[in-house]
Amino acid sequence: MFESAELGHKIDKATYDKEVPALREALLEAQIDLSNAPDFQVIVLVGGVDGAGRGETVNLLNEWMDPRYIQTHGMGEPSDEELERPMMWRFWRALPPKGRIGVFLGSWYTWPILNRALGKTKVADLDQSLERARRLEKMLTDEGALVIKFWLHLSKEKQKKRLKLLEKNPKTRWRVTERDWQHYKMYNKFRSIHESVIRHTSTAEAPWIIVEGEDERYRSLTIGKVILEAIRKRLDDASNKPAGTHAAPLLPSIDNLHILKTLDLAQKLEKKKFESELEKYQGKLNLLTRHAKFKEITVIVMFEGNDAAGKGGSIRRITGALDARQYQVIPIAAPTEEERAQPYLWRFWRHIPRRGRVAIFDRSWYGRVLVERVEGYCRESDWMRAYGEIIDFESQLARHNIVVVKFWLTISKEEQLRRFEDRQKSGFKRFKITDEDWRNREKWDQYEQAICDMVDRTSTEIAPWTLVEANDKNFARIKILRTLCERIEGALKK
Amino acid sequence: MFESAELGHKIDKATYDKEVPALREALLEAQIDLSNAPDFQVIVLVGGVDGAGRGETVNLLNEWMDPRYIQTHGMGEPSDEELERPMMWRFWRALPPKGRIGVFLGSWYTWPILNRALGKTKVADLDQSLERARRLEKMLTDEGALVIKFWLHLSKEKQKKRLKLLEKNPKTRWRVTERDWQHYKMYNKFRSIHESVIRHTSTAEAPWIIVEGEDERYRSLTIGKVILEAIRKRLDDASNKPAGTHAAPLLPSIDNLHILKTLDLAQKLEKKKFESELEKYQGKLNLLTRHAKFKEITVIVMFEGNDAAGKGGSIRRITGALDARQYQVIPIAAPTEEERAQPYLWRFWRHIPRRGRVAIFDRSWYGRVLVERVEGYCRESDWMRAYGEIIDFESQLARHNIVVVKFWLTISKEEQLRRFEDRQKSGFKRFKITDEDWRNREKWDQYEQAICDMVDRTSTEIAPWTLVEANDKNFARIKILRTLCERIEGALKK
Repeated sequence: MFESAELGHKIDKATYDKEVPALREALLEAQIDLSNAPDFQVIVLVGGVDGAGRGETVNLLNEWMDPRYIQTHGMGEPSDEELERPMMWRFWRALPPKGRIGVFLGSWYTWPILNRALGKTKVADLDQSLERARRLEKMLTDEGALVIKFWLHLSKEKQKKRLKLLEKNPKTRWRVTERDWQHYKMYNKFRSIHESVIRHTSTAEAPWIIVEGEDERYRSLTIGKVILEAIRKRLDDASNKPAGTHAAPLLPSIDNLHILKTLDLAQKLEKKKFESELEKYQGKLNLLTRHAKFKEITVIVMFEGNDAAGKGGSIRRITGALDARQYQVIPIAAPTEEERAQPYLWRFWRHIPRRGRVAIFDRSWYGRVLVERVEGYCRESDWMRAYGEIIDFESQLARHNIVVVKFWLTISKEEQLRRFEDRQKSGFKRFKITDEDWRNREKWDQYEQAICDMVDRTSTEIAPWTLVEANDKNFARIKILRTLCERIEGALKK
Repeated sequence: MFESAELGHKIDKATYDKEVPALREALLEAQIDLSNAPDFQVIVLVGGVDGAGRGETVNLLNEWMDPRYIQTHGMGEPSDEELERPMMWRFWRALPPKGRIGVFLGSWYTWPILNRALGKTKVADLDQSLERARRLEKMLTDEGALVIKFWLHLSKEKQKKRLKLLEKNPKTRWRVTERDWQHYKMYNKFRSIHESVIRHTSTAEAPWIIVEGEDERYRSLTIGKVILEAIRKRLDDASNKPAGTHAAPLLPSIDNLHILKTLDLAQKLEKKKFESELEKYQGKLNLLTRHAKFKEITVIVMFEGNDAAGKGGSIRRITGALDARQYQVIPIAAPTEEERAQPYLWRFWRHIPRRGRVAIFDRSWYGRVLVERVEGYCRESDWMRAYGEIIDFESQLARHNIVVVKFWLTISKEEQLRRFEDRQKSGFKRFKITDEDWRNREKWDQYEQAICDMVDRTSTEIAPWTLVEANDKNFARIKILRTLCERIEGALKK
């Protein structure tokens, strides 16, 4: 694995001095082209062993290029706001928008490697972290990002030499810490973990590039050239964009039987019964959110459903039981300019709340496999991969003690017509029926297929879908409140 | 002050039940109109004494209106990320965008009042806080925000009664804390502080509305009606927008002598000397940023200057001395959609870094009084008030141990022409000269006037302007590095 990076690569000063000006010029040009036509972002990870020149490399990149369009992140200790969210939140908030370069010193690999080396985690934990890293990078590259991963390597002997050299020089002495020497003593242990990490996460879309770290000139020229070539290739060859992977078929509907048809939409709740149940479950929900242990969890409630299925009213029955300081309702509309410059899930990650809070999404990340699929707003390959990405996303939430409660509100086609017509008559602005609503209605069958596929592929044990029979509003509201209470109760018991 | 709020206001149930449905309907309509034509945001502060119904009021507003378009913030203990920035940062990050309603339970008044009551601060500190609150609200309303401030009041006797009542009911008992009773014992002290706060911060643009808190029905109806009327008034009457205040004249130029003319642009630094000085000051800057006490401060460096004055090159000489993990360069371009939905300074506040970091702004908040003034992108009254707003902004930074270093790079009209022509010849993309550059050049005199006014009005002891003679790039770069070192040294000595 590290053979090519232990050959003693060296570039002499004359060659270096001759090559650098042209390389810098070309890097700057590439950077300008990138920012003038912001079609993708560049994510550079700089990993490697202590003393191999990670910090110098990052500084050099900032020196060679225009630092105004590079965002450098040294991912040190997380802040309390970061600790209260899943580990990846801090990377999502640091992602560069399209047109920019983000350099990460310390990445999603840092802590898994360190924890494994220090024996805080098991091999299986590391494997899981690597699997997650691989999926994350696949998603980023599928979303168009250019991910370049450098690994700066030193042999044990060379690491010792470098650390001693740094220590001898008064200008660089401060860089060598006690910890570096501790890690040096663990060289072999780290090496075998590093090898495993690199082996498992060198994928076609984001391979590791192992660079020998000893000779500064060799290291710098290599890294500069790799970055230049990668950006240039993407810029100059439009066909070089991540291709849509071939979409494999989903379960076809051949006998006209599907899950939505199994719902008994005739279920009703009489007004009296509704009122007593409403009081009961709202009271319960209120108590649950004031439970001492509630401060340790986070709740994310998500509503999808047919147009006019009553999402807004259901949300109000939930918020009515909560303290307004505790929740945030997030209506999902068209993405903003800043959101469009980021991978699809970014605009949902940004709303993940702190501990002890409730976030209620009115429509959600499932838009990708519903409206975007049916209306053709994204490619087939994009919505096809979205199922897996969404599961990864929700798994991260669940692993971080976040209760994810997902509701699909179903009404019949006849009931929807009735509500549309009612609304048109009543003239209430907040219930305005638009042409779009009528158009969506014409695609009823396509939507049904999309809904069934969505439930099949994303109803998981950690984040199951609750299908809500919503022809009767009272019935739906109570089912929703009861389900939410049960899920929170379950989480508090853990 | 509190007379009208101790009269024992009451609304009987019948009246209440009759009025509420229409009020809710009207509030919802107002909310929809607001979000359909997002021309301003609504900022509602709910203050008052314990037990007067602040929490209930906020919950009720969320119940009556559509919670999807209300953002409620209970401003409790600040997070570590918030503590590392000026106190107001947490409010800026919580501001609702245009078209939305932000409800704040706990505001910029909370801590100043509490600290004063507990004797942690002096009267003078409170006065200063109030002055700052007044200026902040003036800025928000000038920027178009509708600021509605409620104060929920109870007499001492009524407060006792309410707290006892809440304690008696098993459902509300949890709400009454030890601290509430402690505060009750300090009723008179709080009352006099509250009175002073309300007196000093009831301005024409954002007066306090004191509401008697005892009777829930009275309180709710009053608050609902006030909010409805205020939003409606702004929505229905376009002429009801905050008027541009009359702009008072600035110092005219009658003898053609101004500060820029006093600069000796012939100053030069020979290459040899430049190189030794560069090494010296870059080394110094590097040491300073690794100083143990540097972790306690924050540095904000800001560049303004004529087109082609060499801002980019100067920035690179600074970043060349720093660790890339430590700094962020923020190029200021046209605001994004999300930025345009906020008050002018929002897009700068969002980039204020944590402790131990350096933020370098390439162009800045001074755009308001330079390009926006000269090109007429904002009203005269807008840029006229900007001077004071900017001073307030920078004062907040300075008070929080943030070193604000501001550079204006000056070149002569002839030197600019030479550089423009050079750039056109060289054809480097990154130095492309646009039509806009030539147009700006035609307005040279207007810009000079704007620059002189800016320096006169915003060069303060805490955040002075450094005018840099930049005809000779070497001279300029050393002056910038030296100044920056001196300012940081000064801060570390404190």
